[in-house]
Amino acid sequence: MNRPSIPHAAGECATAPRADLWSSVQQAAQRQAGRHLRDQFATDPDRAARMSARCGGIFVDYSKNRLDDADLQQLFALADASGLRGAIDAMFTGERINSTEHRAVLHTALRAPADADIRVDGHNVVPEVHAELAHMAAFAEQLRSGQWRGHTGERITNIVNIGIGGSDLGPRLVCDALRPLGHPDLRTHFVANVDAGRLNGLLRQLDPRTTLFVVCSKSFTTQETLTNARSARAWFLREGATDADVSRHFVAVSTNAEAVAGFGIDPANMFGFWDWVGGRYSLWSAVGLSIMLQIGPAAFRELLAGAHAMDEHFRTAPWSHNLPVLLALIGVWYVNGFGAATHMVAPYDHGLRQLPGYLQQLDMESNGKQTTRDGAPVPRATGPVVWGNSGINGQHAFYQLLHQGAQLVPADFVATLHSPDNTRPHHDIVLANCIAQAQALMMGRTADEARAEMVAEGLPPERIAELLPHRCFGGNRPTNVILLDALTPHTLGALLAMYEHKVFTQGVLWNLNSFDQWGVELGKQLARRIEAAFDSGEPPAGADSSTRQLIALARAALRARDDGAA
Amino acid sequence: MNRPSIPHAAGECATAPRADLWSSVQQAAQRQAGRHLRDQFATDPDRAARMSARCGGIFVDYSKNRLDDADLQQLFALADASGLRGAIDAMFTGERINSTEHRAVLHTALRAPADADIRVDGHNVVPEVHAELAHMAAFAEQLRSGQWRGHTGERITNIVNIGIGGSDLGPRLVCDALRPLGHPDLRTHFVANVDAGRLNGLLRQLDPRTTLFVVCSKSFTTQETLTNARSARAWFLREGATDADVSRHFVAVSTNAEAVAGFGIDPANMFGFWDWVGGRYSLWSAVGLSIMLQIGPAAFRELLAGAHAMDEHFRTAPWSHNLPVLLALIGVWYVNGFGAATHMVAPYDHGLRQLPGYLQQLDMESNGKQTTRDGAPVPRATGPVVWGNSGINGQHAFYQLLHQGAQLVPADFVATLHSPDNTRPHHDIVLANCIAQAQALMMGRTADEARAEMVAEGLPPERIAELLPHRCFGGNRPTNVILLDALTPHTLGALLAMYEHKVFTQGVLWNLNSFDQWGVELGKQLARRIEAAFDSGEPPAGADSSTRQLIALARAALRARDDGAA
Repeated sequence: MNRPSIPHAAGECATAPRADLWSSVQQAAQRQAGRHLRDQFATDPDRAARMSARCGGIFVDYSKNRLDDADLQQLFALADASGLRGAIDAMFTGERINSTEHRAVLHTALRAPADADIRVDGHNVVPEVHAELAHMAAFAEQLRSGQWRGHTGERITNIVNIGIGGSDLGPRLVCDALRPLGHPDLRTHFVANVDAGRLNGLLRQLDPRTTLFVVCSKSFTTQETLTNARSARAWFLREGATDADVSRHFVAVSTNAEAVAGFGIDPANMFGFWDWVGGRYSLWSAVGLSIMLQIGPAAFRELLAGAHAMDEHFRTAPWSHNLPVLLALIGVWYVNGFGAATHMVAPYDHGLRQLPGYLQQLDMESNGKQTTRDGAPVPRATGPVVWGNSGINGQHAFYQLLHQGAQLVPADFVATLHSPDNTRPHHDIVLANCIAQAQALMMGRTADEARAEMVAEGLPPERIAELLPHRCFGGNRPTNVILLDALTPHTLGALLAMYEHKVFTQGVLWNLNSFDQWGVELGKQLARRIEAAFDSGEPPAGADSSTRQLIALARAALRARDDGAA
Repeated sequence: MNRPSIPHAAGECATAPRADLWSSVQQAAQRQAGRHLRDQFATDPDRAARMSARCGGIFVDYSKNRLDDADLQQLFALADASGLRGAIDAMFTGERINSTEHRAVLHTALRAPADADIRVDGHNVVPEVHAELAHMAAFAEQLRSGQWRGHTGERITNIVNIGIGGSDLGPRLVCDALRPLGHPDLRTHFVANVDAGRLNGLLRQLDPRTTLFVVCSKSFTTQETLTNARSARAWFLREGATDADVSRHFVAVSTNAEAVAGFGIDPANMFGFWDWVGGRYSLWSAVGLSIMLQIGPAAFRELLAGAHAMDEHFRTAPWSHNLPVLLALIGVWYVNGFGAATHMVAPYDHGLRQLPGYLQQLDMESNGKQTTRDGAPVPRATGPVVWGNSGINGQHAFYQLLHQGAQLVPADFVATLHSPDNTRPHHDIVLANCIAQAQALMMGRTADEARAEMVAEGLPPERIAELLPHRCFGGNRPTNVILLDALTPHTLGALLAMYEHKVFTQGVLWNLNSFDQWGVELGKQLARRIEAAFDSGEPPAGADSSTRQLIALARAALRARDDGAA
């Protein structure tokens, strides 16, 4: 367990030039704070063409950001000084860049072609990746073709993915986005929350004879997932099946063969992955089994190919055309130069409505930290709160704050150009609104413009005077507009990989380890103690008066339920 | 249209004392910045009992906030100086406190008992409210009893609510939360997004002979809603019905009788409301028709009664026990005293999973503003970004940032004590986690504690040294824990009214008009021009190069689709 040398965390000698560059970036941002994007567009007719970039089926217009070419050069210099180039190479070549856990970070290997050679400690991992893909594909073909049957001989028509965090959000997003490509006789459901309202509500709609459960937990000990899996098994058995039938209706995504077998699952139907695949980067692995069951192995491989195309782009494109790097630098620009606390993501495609929730985990679990790789405090703001919602719905809900609120909220708008299911005039309205909102946020409306409109509306002067301050919009609010040619497995794979690498790049700039998540362990530990206190009636040692009060209230309610049930 | 005098916006004379009080509040917050909640609990054994309050079935423990009794007194003084008492009275008595639109704000009248007397311009509105409730109830009884039939004589089994913003989020949240109480043979669906993927995906699962559409648009001109409604009608007619059948399958929540009739809806089945009901406060009105269809008139009246109980509490309880006021002041404390940019809401009840999206509109559309009622700039931060997700799921996704991120994120955790459907051990786990996360955020974990744990785990000293900074938690991160006795119509009504009044109170403190939404109009206007440009090929006059580029890309895609369809 030697700690590896990490080229881009070169310690003190790299810190000083970085500090200077951060100051320069902040000074540049301050200069921009006094300028309006309206003016930058007015004096620079080429701005949009120059400040756009493309990779495969993804087009990004980042021209409506409060920066100019010189600012971008500053940011590229910051990337260089942060050792981004070396960091990218270290990740792709399997160095143990997850420094606190001494692990490689190789979700990119999950989408590498079969003839690639990616080594961890001298061992090429690509053959194993493709062997597991073949294992998944064989099972998926059996199930999709109807060869795999339930214990009464009926075909499987419903898949229930039981998993939480990365074992839920990625597969759920992709299944949702690619539903039109799904097997016509299969429906896929996701159970993450341990609240029994979710599982019970779903099970009431299902028939145990035609349902397959995919239990996703690397360790096969995740409390929420195993609790749900056990309750699903109890339902299955209660409805007339026997223990021997469990293996026809439950499969596992895990690496704990013993626990999987103990549950009643045939270890031949356990699909595995590796310690160099983090939960939030795992949809490309066996964690994506539910995706493959729904869309089939060929489309799943297209998803991987799209991500791989983005990997190659990220690895090779110069910063000035590199989508993940550009988005990362622009994000850092607002966090550290403008004090932006959040980043909003608005999908203008119903199929992508889960994207904000997915990115919330990807980004906040990766960069919601303030300790550097070297164990020092990060001397500046780090990962923002990532949030959002369907753009069209958001316009009728929270966009008021984006336009006229007191804080700057940088945003990504994601839309789809070709969308066969989105008939006329629906798609026109969606695209028009996406473009219009970005324009409105950038332009704003001046007092002169607002006044002229109210005059045209025929309002009397005293009413105009009264309304004027409320109908002005400051504008100068930045967006990236991200257009997918179409919502296909390939472009979706590329889109998600683009965000993965954006988050990675920001982690490098802030000198964070984006691949651990120590922040989740304390709550888990305390929850176990509190659960024990529900049984024992003894509050955990040293618990504060609030925790004790809440435990007493919860315990009384739980006991009342038990008494009612008895 | 006289502008009314508003007692709590008393202009210049009130500004000076308020400014002093704001400074005092900020100074008090700065003093708290150097203190740890651990210590405040250690030295004050009564803290939790004292800093908790209750109204009906809702218990709020606000003791894990970074303030003490003296700070609360400061905040109460700020509330007094802001004229909160007068503002509450002005709202409840029907003054035209929506100052830019010269309207009263009387969602509280929607839940007032039949013998109440609430006057707008001398006219008691309560009888109309109850007449419309009776109108809704008569229709709901007909439909729920099976007396109302589709055009082929079959019973209605599926309700589709077509509406967006307030015509979607509130009804959707309530229907979801109270699903266990719903009519066993009726399912309710919500269509908001104009992306046809939503409507088409739903219609594929429905039978036009057994489906009722509730079209919710006050003006009956909301573009997204009317586009979806027209497409739903086209589907209905395509499947074999005639124009005369439309009125058996479409009803409206609107005040535009002419447009409703033009659509083919019988104006007798138009359910109306009033200009003193804002969209985001409208679920208590006819906009709640889908709720009433699902849970029945009696349960709907219970929802209103719960909200009314909270209204009375808000109107009469002293600040020190007043839930909406306490939550509002605590929120302002973090926004203006600690620079918090966001507020997180985590429901620990699957039935409440839509609460964050609902509160996002309620809060951000109300207070995402920076112009005072008098038209001056607000000299401080205003409404935060409101975001969140199911707490259990969030723990496996974004809680990393809450615990160890660089920014302070105040949070509300909302859980339910009695939950019959949430069987053992599911409910125990949910409640234990809710309490534990609040405890962990407050306590943190010191270096000594982290070191002791790693020693107990048997880690070698060099590994302990390496991990130590990553396994410490600063703590001192505030939460409110909000416990519902049970998730019933009554407690849910009270919960939503509590948040309405919280948002109102904050608007008063910031001297905003929380009841307009001018920020949504610019984008709408530009979208119409861009849609026209898709047809004409002429970009809107004065459009910047980015907008022109995006229009060209969208237009090419839309034309390719039309060519493909031709």
